[in-house]
Amino acid sequence: MHWSGKASLKGATEVERDIFAELERIFHPRGVVIVGASNSDGNLGRFFLDGFIQLGFEKLYVVHPREKEVRGVKTYSTVGEISGEVDLAVVFSPQETVSQVVRECTLKGIKGVVVCTSGFGEKDGEGRRLEQEVVEIARRGDTRLIGPNCVGIYCPSSRLANFGFLPKESGPVGMISQSGSLAVMFTVAEAARGIRFSKVVSCGNECDLNAADFLAYLGQDPETRIILTYLEGVKDARRFCQLAREVSMEKPIIIWKGGTTEVGARAAATHTGALAGATEIWRAAIAQTGMISANSAEELLDCLEAFYFLPLPKGGRAAIVSAMGGLGVTIADACIECGLEVATLSAHTRRRLEEFVPPVGTSIDNPVDLGMGSIFNPQLYIDTIRALVEDDNVDMLLITSSSWDPSYIERVLEVVRGVEKPIAFVSTPALKTVMEEPLPTTGIAIYPDGRRAAMALGKLVAYRRFRSGD
Amino acid sequence: MHWSGKASLKGATEVERDIFAELERIFHPRGVVIVGASNSDGNLGRFFLDGFIQLGFEKLYVVHPREKEVRGVKTYSTVGEISGEVDLAVVFSPQETVSQVVRECTLKGIKGVVVCTSGFGEKDGEGRRLEQEVVEIARRGDTRLIGPNCVGIYCPSSRLANFGFLPKESGPVGMISQSGSLAVMFTVAEAARGIRFSKVVSCGNECDLNAADFLAYLGQDPETRIILTYLEGVKDARRFCQLAREVSMEKPIIIWKGGTTEVGARAAATHTGALAGATEIWRAAIAQTGMISANSAEELLDCLEAFYFLPLPKGGRAAIVSAMGGLGVTIADACIECGLEVATLSAHTRRRLEEFVPPVGTSIDNPVDLGMGSIFNPQLYIDTIRALVEDDNVDMLLITSSSWDPSYIERVLEVVRGVEKPIAFVSTPALKTVMEEPLPTTGIAIYPDGRRAAMALGKLVAYRRFRSGD
Repeated sequence: MHWSGKASLKGATEVERDIFAELERIFHPRGVVIVGASNSDGNLGRFFLDGFIQLGFEKLYVVHPREKEVRGVKTYSTVGEISGEVDLAVVFSPQETVSQVVRECTLKGIKGVVVCTSGFGEKDGEGRRLEQEVVEIARRGDTRLIGPNCVGIYCPSSRLANFGFLPKESGPVGMISQSGSLAVMFTVAEAARGIRFSKVVSCGNECDLNAADFLAYLGQDPETRIILTYLEGVKDARRFCQLAREVSMEKPIIIWKGGTTEVGARAAATHTGALAGATEIWRAAIAQTGMISANSAEELLDCLEAFYFLPLPKGGRAAIVSAMGGLGVTIADACIECGLEVATLSAHTRRRLEEFVPPVGTSIDNPVDLGMGSIFNPQLYIDTIRALVEDDNVDMLLITSSSWDPSYIERVLEVVRGVEKPIAFVSTPALKTVMEEPLPTTGIAIYPDGRRAAMALGKLVAYRRFRSGD
Repeated sequence: MHWSGKASLKGATEVERDIFAELERIFHPRGVVIVGASNSDGNLGRFFLDGFIQLGFEKLYVVHPREKEVRGVKTYSTVGEISGEVDLAVVFSPQETVSQVVRECTLKGIKGVVVCTSGFGEKDGEGRRLEQEVVEIARRGDTRLIGPNCVGIYCPSSRLANFGFLPKESGPVGMISQSGSLAVMFTVAEAARGIRFSKVVSCGNECDLNAADFLAYLGQDPETRIILTYLEGVKDARRFCQLAREVSMEKPIIIWKGGTTEVGARAAATHTGALAGATEIWRAAIAQTGMISANSAEELLDCLEAFYFLPLPKGGRAAIVSAMGGLGVTIADACIECGLEVATLSAHTRRRLEEFVPPVGTSIDNPVDLGMGSIFNPQLYIDTIRALVEDDNVDMLLITSSSWDPSYIERVLEVVRGVEKPIAFVSTPALKTVMEEPLPTTGIAIYPDGRRAAMALGKLVAYRRFRSGD
């Protein structure tokens, strides 16, 4: 099955092609109505309206029973009164009015309704009954539901917002999140690092459209090259896993699973009503589908940065360069523990290193230790990096450095330009402020700790092996 | 055995009391000579001399065969020419001259010689022979050796430097490191977070004084409340473990072990000549001695920040507060996986929370989810934190927050003032810049990821249990 580009969908089943077409309309609406935005302080609907305005979406409508105008947008008292074409509704109305709003949306022929309102399936009793009612109303029309209890869709290329103040630029990362706030948090956090998103969808309780539907969509979406997911449970595990395996062959899927413990799973049930499922089953599913598993927000982003900025390595043989023996030793440990090998340098490379690496207080065995003197001699680093990237026994580099001078990084980039090997810089806690700045270009990734760099590179290798069937 | 304060050494064996007295003289020298500092560019000796000058050490001497003056300090051609009293020498001379320098030091009656020069026991053959020779010379005199292949001693209260540009202020953290650069890196990194050190010693190849000696010293040192260690191997494992167990009863020892894999251990052998020892034996030793184990630089510092800023919790029951359901769920997972419990809130606390937490899109079960609306309502956080810290079923708090307004943190601190329960703030990747600033005061610790917070709190609980014999 081919997943890259609209022209290459022929391997997808008809069902998945239909979902793609259906979601394309919802993700590229001719008009959007925000139901429940008001001028009250702290009104979430207005905050989202700000998001749409700021991204530049033009055909915006607001529905509210009492307001005349919100943020300069004319307000209608019901959806039915709008005469323009609307394909997407984003609903913030009180829980008890949501059925009526969805009914009006179906009558208006709206393709997708995002229900942001909470208090449905994640609460027992009345909440669950209301959710069922809303689903039945939508199904009788031709309307698909996203949520409830979510923040909906961010899609910068079609100017859809799921919060205020999001980046306008598109990028290759798609995200599916069962937590609305995490969806927003990751978008904002990664934007600061120069990483941009194609589509981010928060799917909440998944009363209708679910994570598998969005995976089918992002899998076929030509804008999306990498997929991030935060999931607490899936409604249709068989289809989800089947899709995950097929999509993984083309695009990495990085997954953070919430509810991996009994206590966490119980919390997930009150959060999105998801059944988190047994951890062992999940673990097996992740291994079989080739998904990349992360166990924290930080690990998810560390993995994303590797897949975003670095090429896939040919193999798992890492070379390590440091000016600090202790860092070299511990990064070697971390590499081994993260499934990498510590490369055996070629005789040619060793001869090259012998020519310029001082003989005392250093080591030209991998991990290469350039010694304390290298603090005053960045050229030693540059020459060493050149020798190592040119060694056929080396698939990737981990470099710790005492200097983070931009001109030094520029020179390293020159040496590694065109080399299809991942290069990870290991910053050190003493130098961590450098991490806050966006990278100068792709081709290298920077991690604040050797173990985090080794972990992320280990995931690249594991994914490469999955794709090549090893 | 009591380890806190000079007045309480009576439980220590005579051998350990002798070591303490011997090292006290070396750590508080009447004069210091730097051998091998010169005016050449990139001279390490001069860089260290800068460090001593900047810390304000006054009785400084320099020995160099050709220089007349370095940094305004009069230079002698041999140690023997110095007439003032000198208790510590820091040696940067070329390897082949070190024996002669040490001989002169013994004749001068110098108590301690730090040999920074590399190329001894960590290299086979000639290096190892030279190291043995130096040891024999020192033993014939009454001189103790630190190193070779190290950076020696940082002790701000007696103005000793092991690098340039170190903080002048003392604090309660002692450190023993077999990597010189890591010793310096941690000092600088933690200073940026407001953490200060009592003594930092880099012990290199440990040809004479070794990690166990320094552990005995820091264990008895009244200035030291927490001990950090980076070790690749120990020379006298039985004594080290015996000491570690005894010291741990009074002061937490946080250990990062390098060379935990075969490849890392091989690298350690060329780094400091240390025999890293089997990982399983180390793991058992760490468990039995009550030491706190960290597996990366980041984890070491995360643990240190918990022990530095937070009180020891009475038990392992954690309460979690978030405005993001997904973070609450995953922090609950992380707590369980790090050996904590997720507290069952008392009926009284639940009733209190019910009074002010909105009923929809929230949860008053632990993890407490305050919902998206709390973005606009920090008071909700304050009231919730108050209710939770006052619950006897709660031993510690993990708080994620959307607001990092200093006045908000100030208000949280007011609520938790005087409460002897650890409070960890979980920042989020989107808000990570806050992490760069020093904490406003002790009493809370801030972590950029829920898992890292749970890990650090889990270590506090494990240590508390070790101390109380559970």
